[in-house]
Amino acid sequence: MKKLITEFIGTFFLVLSAGLASGDLTVLIIGATLMVMIFAGGHISGAHYNPAVTLAVFIRGRCTLNEALGYWVAQFVAALVAALLVNYFKGESTPMVIQDTTKALIAELIATFALAYVVLNVATAKGTTGNSFYGLAIGFTVFALGSQVGPISGGALNPAVALGACVMKAFDWSNIWIYLVGCLIGGALAALVFKMNNADDK
Amino acid sequence: MKKLITEFIGTFFLVLSAGLASGDLTVLIIGATLMVMIFAGGHISGAHYNPAVTLAVFIRGRCTLNEALGYWVAQFVAALVAALLVNYFKGESTPMVIQDTTKALIAELIATFALAYVVLNVATAKGTTGNSFYGLAIGFTVFALGSQVGPISGGALNPAVALGACVMKAFDWSNIWIYLVGCLIGGALAALVFKMNNADDK
Amino acid sequence: MKKLITEFIGTFFLVLSAGLASGDLTVLIIGATLMVMIFAGGHISGAHYNPAVTLAVFIRGRCTLNEALGYWVAQFVAALVAALLVNYFKGESTPMVIQDTTKALIAELIATFALAYVVLNVATAKGTTGNSFYGLAIGFTVFALGSQVGPISGGALNPAVALGACVMKAFDWSNIWIYLVGCLIGGALAALVFKMNNADDK
Amino acid sequence: MKKLITEFIGTFFLVLSAGLASGDLTVLIIGATLMVMIFAGGHISGAHYNPAVTLAVFIRGRCTLNEALGYWVAQFVAALVAALLVNYFKGESTPMVIQDTTKALIAELIATFALAYVVLNVATAKGTTGNSFYGLAIGFTVFALGSQVGPISGGALNPAVALGACVMKAFDWSNIWIYLVGCLIGGALAALVFKMNNADDK
Repeated sequence: MKKLITEFIGTFFLVLSAGLASGDLTVLIIGATLMVMIFAGGHISGAHYNPAVTLAVFIRGRCTLNEALGYWVAQFVAALVAALLVNYFKGESTPMVIQDTTKALIAELIATFALAYVVLNVATAKGTTGNSFYGLAIGFTVFALGSQVGPISGGALNPAVALGACVMKAFDWSNIWIYLVGCLIGGALAALVFKMNNADDK
Repeated sequence: MKKLITEFIGTFFLVLSAGLASGDLTVLIIGATLMVMIFAGGHISGAHYNPAVTLAVFIRGRCTLNEALGYWVAQFVAALVAALLVNYFKGESTPMVIQDTTKALIAELIATFALAYVVLNVATAKGTTGNSFYGLAIGFTVFALGSQVGPISGGALNPAVALGACVMKAFDWSNIWIYLVGCLIGGALAALVFKMNNADDK
Repeated sequence: MKKLITEFIGTFFLVLSAGLASGDLTVLIIGATLMVMIFAGGHISGAHYNPAVTLAVFIRGRCTLNEALGYWVAQFVAALVAALLVNYFKGESTPMVIQDTTKALIAELIATFALAYVVLNVATAKGTTGNSFYGLAIGFTVFALGSQVGPISGGALNPAVALGACVMKAFDWSNIWIYLVGCLIGGALAALVFKMNNADDK
Repeated sequence: MKKLITEFIGTFFLVLSAGLASGDLTVLIIGATLMVMIFAGGHISGAHYNPAVTLAVFIRGRCTLNEALGYWVAQFVAALVAALLVNYFKGESTPMVIQDTTKALIAELIATFALAYVVLNVATAKGTTGNSFYGLAIGFTVFALGSQVGPISGGALNPAVALGACVMKAFDWSNIWIYLVGCLIGGALAALVFKMNNADDK
């Protein structure tokens, strides 16, 4: 239960930041929010805050199917609550227009691959056990990759963030499949590459 | 006594930064100031620099009532001194107008909840003992959450910062209750959530 | 083999960031990308992602000639693939005009010296063994030095990045010698200074 | 000798960054440069790169008078060389006008106090031994405090940087006393406060 509360709190603040951050530093603010929530919650739940990361961790063999499903529910519910609060604070947004859905799908897939690849290596690998940089690495992956693919796909890197963005009307509901498909495939591919590259690290 | 001097120095520089920082990176400068003062003073006083954090640490059971009261005095006096120095350097500001005090109260409560939640988890939890990221996590929480709620409430996240901002006339005295009430309730709630989620960590 | 895959992935994302990042934070985004890929891959390949760094590590005696050659191939191939993907996403760029090639050569040499000097000291020196800051230090060297020499030379600090920038047409092919010569000499000099300054650290 | 070479390299890159950095992130670039040079050189020389820091470390009892004098020479010579290189790259600057030299003196004193206070606590105190954040803390102190006092005094926080800025004509020679007096007093005061607050840490 405390794991699910931790996932709820972390995902809530991540989606809140996606809705409230503004200005030139928007993506840095979002990445910093993820970083601090990972440092705060990692010791309890592993601090996924992202269904694609949970899928990657499940494939890598560090959580059970039941845990993964519980995490997914907590993440999506947190995203919904955060999005409603954003709407209360500042009203709904105008949806971003995706120029090319194929490019958007590839962009989300690649960026989420990077995110899950970093997560698995800094938070679950033997070779980096006990480090103090896991939150910095993961949060700044969202800053770096989110900034790069933002103009192409919106830069969600996270199906729960995409759900929240649809509820805020920052994303169009008709595009949500891009994030469900792209992010989950990206996360799954990262897990396969990790297992291939770390065959002796069960 | 050395704890009170440390709290005075850290809070002084935090409030100074809230008054002197300017430009696009204003909130990043404030968060960085908090980060460096936490890394410098954490080993002596725990580096609260914030009456709401002190309240949270007191409820969590990591300081006595007497210590908490001493910390509060040091923090508010430091804020006053820093604000007077800011007025000497650049004159008084024009107070920010709060459009909606209910939204401002909720924003400060939620943002300070996040701050105290991060503090308790990275600086007082068994599961993160000996880490090298506590200052980064706490300082960047102020950057991230302060940026998000800044347009709504001013983004103090700290009753001592709010007092300093009133003395600088950056906040209106008639709004100071927002920060006293919102930040202290946010800090207290974070302590309750922490205790629930870490029942075996006394 | 897993080392080469790791070098490929890290260099791929570094060159992708050099092509896709935009706005005021462009060089910070690139430095952050390098940082997270170093934290993710350092435990497997040492996370060079840069032929000049591989040269420095080879001279310092921490990899064999065969390994270095394999790393170079992986890095240049990754740069090529990333550049083609950038062209798919946003089309080719307009090449930067280098005003003064002598200044550009000196700038790349000095900046890459700084980068390789930092790498050798934070990732291969006895005195910093087991630290949690190596990725932060190296990534932010690219941010700091790349920002400084960017207006003079483009700020590649890396022959593979320069190759990718030529394929994207962000750099002119006629200038690629600047990066091959400047960066490799800078990296080699850093290795010599390191060995002189750390004579007892074989 | 290797200590002096390390001080020369670190101060050289710090002063180079003060001359070459430009744009909205100027002070962040300078702070990042200091951070990476501290992470690279701390294990050899202690990474002062600043005569005011060397004075503070001397008063705190962690270096001898002879070492301190050698460090000062290396730091000032490095600043001179870096400033000449900046002039080669981009020509001389137009000197900043200091509106109020009293305010500038107080600003440099307070900001350098903060810098030396952070250095002594994160790099020489028993309570923070073995941490991985010392470079981050010190580099970001220059970013945070330099940004705050920049409009008042130029934000050198370092007599060697001030010398370099005079050679680049970014500062006026007639104002150099502000930095010699203000920074050195700030550093000395920090050492006294540190010794008072850490009486049992010789």
